Amino acid sequence: MADLELMRELSLESEARIVMLVMDGLGGMPRQPGGPTELEFARTPNLDRLAAQSMLGLSIPIGNGITPGSGPGHMALFGYDPVKYLIGRGVLEALGIGFVLTPDDLAARGNFCTVDAELRITDRRAGRIPTDKCRQLVQKLRAIRLPGVEIFVEPVQDYRFALIFRGPGLSGRLNETDPQRTGVPPLPVAAQADDAKASAELANRWIGAAREILTAEQPANMVTLRGWAKEPGLPKFNAVYKLKALSLAVYPMYKGLTTLVGMDVLQGLRHLEDQLAALAANWKSYDFFFVHYKYTDSRGEDGDFEAKAAEIEKVDAILPRILELKPEVLIVTGDHSTPAAWKAHSWHPVPTLLHAPGRGRLNAVQGFGESECLKGALGQFPAVDLMPMALAYAGRMAKFGA
Amino acid sequence: MADLELMRELSLESEARIVMLVMDGLGGMPRQPGGPTELEFARTPNLDRLAAQSMLGLSIPIGNGITPGSGPGHMALFGYDPVKYLIGRGVLEALGIGFVLTPDDLAARGNFCTVDAELRITDRRAGRIPTDKCRQLVQKLRAIRLPGVEIFVEPVQDYRFALIFRGPGLSGRLNETDPQRTGVPPLPVAAQADDAKASAELANRWIGAAREILTAEQPANMVTLRGWAKEPGLPKFNAVYKLKALSLAVYPMYKGLTTLVGMDVLQGLRHLEDQLAALAANWKSYDFFFVHYKYTDSRGEDGDFEAKAAEIEKVDAILPRILELKPEVLIVTGDHSTPAAWKAHSWHPVPTLLHAPGRGRLNAVQGFGESECLKGALGQFPAVDLMPMALAYAGRMAKFGA
Repeated sequence: MADLELMRELSLESEARIVMLVMDGLGGMPRQPGGPTELEFARTPNLDRLAAQSMLGLSIPIGNGITPGSGPGHMALFGYDPVKYLIGRGVLEALGIGFVLTPDDLAARGNFCTVDAELRITDRRAGRIPTDKCRQLVQKLRAIRLPGVEIFVEPVQDYRFALIFRGPGLSGRLNETDPQRTGVPPLPVAAQADDAKASAELANRWIGAAREILTAEQPANMVTLRGWAKEPGLPKFNAVYKLKALSLAVYPMYKGLTTLVGMDVLQGLRHLEDQLAALAANWKSYDFFFVHYKYTDSRGEDGDFEAKAAEIEKVDAILPRILELKPEVLIVTGDHSTPAAWKAHSWHPVPTLLHAPGRGRLNAVQGFGESECLKGALGQFPAVDLMPMALAYAGRMAKFGA
Repeated sequence: MADLELMRELSLESEARIVMLVMDGLGGMPRQPGGPTELEFARTPNLDRLAAQSMLGLSIPIGNGITPGSGPGHMALFGYDPVKYLIGRGVLEALGIGFVLTPDDLAARGNFCTVDAELRITDRRAGRIPTDKCRQLVQKLRAIRLPGVEIFVEPVQDYRFALIFRGPGLSGRLNETDPQRTGVPPLPVAAQADDAKASAELANRWIGAAREILTAEQPANMVTLRGWAKEPGLPKFNAVYKLKALSLAVYPMYKGLTTLVGMDVLQGLRHLEDQLAALAANWKSYDFFFVHYKYTDSRGEDGDFEAKAAEIEKVDAILPRILELKPEVLIVTGDHSTPAAWKAHSWHPVPTLLHAPGRGRLNAVQGFGESECLKGALGQFPAVDLMPMALAYAGRMAKFGA
């Protein structure tokens, strides 16, 4: 398994272009033993034709048996060891609402909650206040000022908001204030390391001020804060891979994750059609393109096998338009499996296709699906190996050693 | 590959039960090229039927090309990186005779040897004295007392015995006294680290006392000591995996190894029949069961292909009784290969079956054997990944990251 330092050393400048097309939660399960998975059930003539001219395999996102969240799943696809480069929950929450984090930022997930006169929590979610109410309260909390930091409070959904402190020397090594039960007061923020003491003090002052502002509100008269995390300061795609990378994603979370690894993020995309048009329009300006399709995962989470298959068919339909651009390497994969049968992410290896015209050892396969991928030329491989392979098949990697 | 810290973080409490059925040295080799292996030659209707409803694969115990001893082979099956969590030879020797080690114990393998008047070794094995003689001499050596430690001397076989010091602050960083050749005296015990100096002095005093006791004996008038090792203080199954684990093994070595990882060990089992009865009797009290069958390895070591196949058939015959208990996950595997053709352990990947009703992607296979496992859904995988997969398929693992 190549690490980023090795990639930094071996990657080469080139004109060759790579497209990574990610169908979120692509991997699936049969509805009954021996039946087809969602991908195998879907009518995918373009993917099937391409499979015979490509290398197939199954990528293991984190490790056998480990079910990835969206953050770690994508980190692995981008070649970043997801156990080493863990993205904290506060950062993911901020990314999920499109907040652009800087390296000076410390982010937390906030909950509005209800407390009694003795400050004991009576409802950890403040009666699940509506998002509109959340926006009003957030607006009030924006009045809080603290020395040495800029403060952002952003509504998320219902009783949830994001809190971001921006300033030098902040640390995310802070404990959570949510006691995870009612009848007790929120915990104070405590530093888990000496260099986090100043951040803990800031956080407690902010919470004190928030309590004063909210005191007369009902039911959302207090807050809890969780998932403290610094912007992780990841190595960037251009430095590690010598790639000028463009992110074509619709959902804020994926725009945020690709920002963290140094991709340029195109804003305002709403549909696959927008993404395809943007891909063509920017073809000459970039050499790596991340195209993210969310709805395969969404329908898997819904437990709707046929709807998930239908989403895969939509992506199949646009495949010729990507191929027309003649990328040196086209990867079709997912960040994890989301079997409709489970209505949840799973650890199962993810069907992966690597198309590199004229460069691959092909495999005798009948189409693109979990069972055929098991016979593929790439075997079962760690997802972090996908970027090294992509660069290699694009002719963008030097020899290691003399 | 998941490490134990990650498992500690992700594992969940649950009612789901896991059975790991280990046929020691299961993997084999054909007698002639293209022929069946022992497992493929054996008539195993139950395993073959189960294979079609399970996921197959080949587990790599330590690494490609690395032949495991019994200790490392089992550590890998239990999810402990066997290179990181090495069990010293002195500890294995003590475990092999059923000696229950505590964290305060320092163990060594002892040999009786013969020395001349100048203390030069003339026979490193003392003429391979019979075990009865070994017992008599060990009885004499038990008279030795040293300050601050309790001392155990236990006969093993022929000229071999085990020596255990029990006390605070002992260290295994000591060199061996066997010079590995004759004509020279045994080496003194020297500390390989500062914190081992006291242990080295103790060891040398014990050897001096042993020499005085043995001086008039013939031919076993001296000892050498090797494989110094502390009880390794491994993380325990309940802490790492949140599993209450029961070990159903007949041989002392495997009882000892499972003690080290925190399993409860049922004593007094003598046959597969006992093990099966104990499995059923304890079904409600535990959620992980290790069932160890030694004789596949023994017949492989003997070089008896058909006898090894016959042992596999005995295990096949009891398989329905395990399935009747309806474990959420049943794993059938080995700790390494012991091809009869080689009369020895080998590094070849080990046929593995993971049965998790309703949870797996199945594979189109004809039965349970090395060639079919090569087509299996699990691929070839590190043996340490087996526990994460077992927990995942049992629904005992949380998602990693958001």
